[in-house]
Amino acid sequence: MTAEVTENLALGRLDDEARAALFTSARTANTWTDTPVTDDELASIWELAKWAPTSANIQPLRVLYVRPGEGRSRLVTHMSDGNKAKTQAAPAVAVLALDTRFHEHIPAVFPHRPELKDAYEANEAMRENGGRLNATLQAGYFILAIRAHGLAAGPMTGFDSVGLDADFFPDGRFKSFIVVNIGHPGENAWMQRLPRLDHEDVIRWA
Amino acid sequence: MTAEVTENLALGRLDDEARAALFTSARTANTWTDTPVTDDELASIWELAKWAPTSANIQPLRVLYVRPGEGRSRLVTHMSDGNKAKTQAAPAVAVLALDTRFHEHIPAVFPHRPELKDAYEANEAMRENGGRLNATLQAGYFILAIRAHGLAAGPMTGFDSVGLDADFFPDGRFKSFIVVNIGHPGENAWMQRLPRLDHEDVIRWA
Repeated sequence: MTAEVTENLALGRLDDEARAALFTSARTANTWTDTPVTDDELASIWELAKWAPTSANIQPLRVLYVRPGEGRSRLVTHMSDGNKAKTQAAPAVAVLALDTRFHEHIPAVFPHRPELKDAYEANEAMRENGGRLNATLQAGYFILAIRAHGLAAGPMTGFDSVGLDADFFPDGRFKSFIVVNIGHPGENAWMQRLPRLDHEDVIRWA
Repeated sequence: MTAEVTENLALGRLDDEARAALFTSARTANTWTDTPVTDDELASIWELAKWAPTSANIQPLRVLYVRPGEGRSRLVTHMSDGNKAKTQAAPAVAVLALDTRFHEHIPAVFPHRPELKDAYEANEAMRENGGRLNATLQAGYFILAIRAHGLAAGPMTGFDSVGLDADFFPDGRFKSFIVVNIGHPGENAWMQRLPRLDHEDVIRWA
């Protein structure tokens, strides 16, 4: 690639409004308005999130969108008690899961080094650690991609993943690790914002 | 909180330019211009990333910023061969690490349920899994927060984390899991963009 191409991709800074939508004002929602979330919106969230980077482009995250109805009621049975009502009520819900056999796609997504598929096949720790790390990175991208659509996210780890997987992913290949409610925030949607750690507790310099 | 408060937090959608900066045009950079990244910019990246959500607000990610100089040369010795030159050359580098004793902060960051600290202390699997999951989510937020500052990120998992931790975190509390180069992209900064999985390989509906 030429230097001109680099030039053309000069990067913009997010303005305060965009920072507010993703980070500084956005909040985890616990109630929802009746406004539906369309299948187009849900597909578009993935269309945005998919571009952010993963190690060797492995992209191990999978997404199950659970619409209102029978599937939703079944999903709610696997949620912790404190998460049942809001998950039942949410306009849309995404189950985020790791594809434990993500490496089967490597010849397509990392075509200049297809033999990496065999390296992952042979090394269970590398497959497990790399899959888990990158699926979780992608979950972070996904939560912010929901917010980029003007929607509120309600990510939860309080659910029975073994029961959920047996119910929704019975072949054992996908392993759920986060469930995210998606919608427009309703009345009293948020709890009081909790404090963040001080910089000196988080940041070091060398 | 009142419904009025919810109203005031109505969420915006990101426009195409902001989506490009974070997702659709942003790329993992491998070369850098000489333009420095200031300590203020590095502090501001964290100031943005810190607001995105974690389970029970545990915030287990820690960041070591390694400036050019002696520390950087020491860091490079722990990088995989293919990552050494670009890490040496980057205007700034962030080592992202898990604080394995993140739960000590729970009385400050989750003040309505301080006893959660003891639950994490007593349950090693819960501490390890919760810490790892949430630190990695925060790493995803952090990468996008770099991009939100008009900077390019170069995240890497190719390094000797055991050697790095012994060198930079000798008390054993922090465990590094990603190193991210940060700067303005230089000439020929990117490889050809790799394909993303098809929607039907990633998305399911229920």
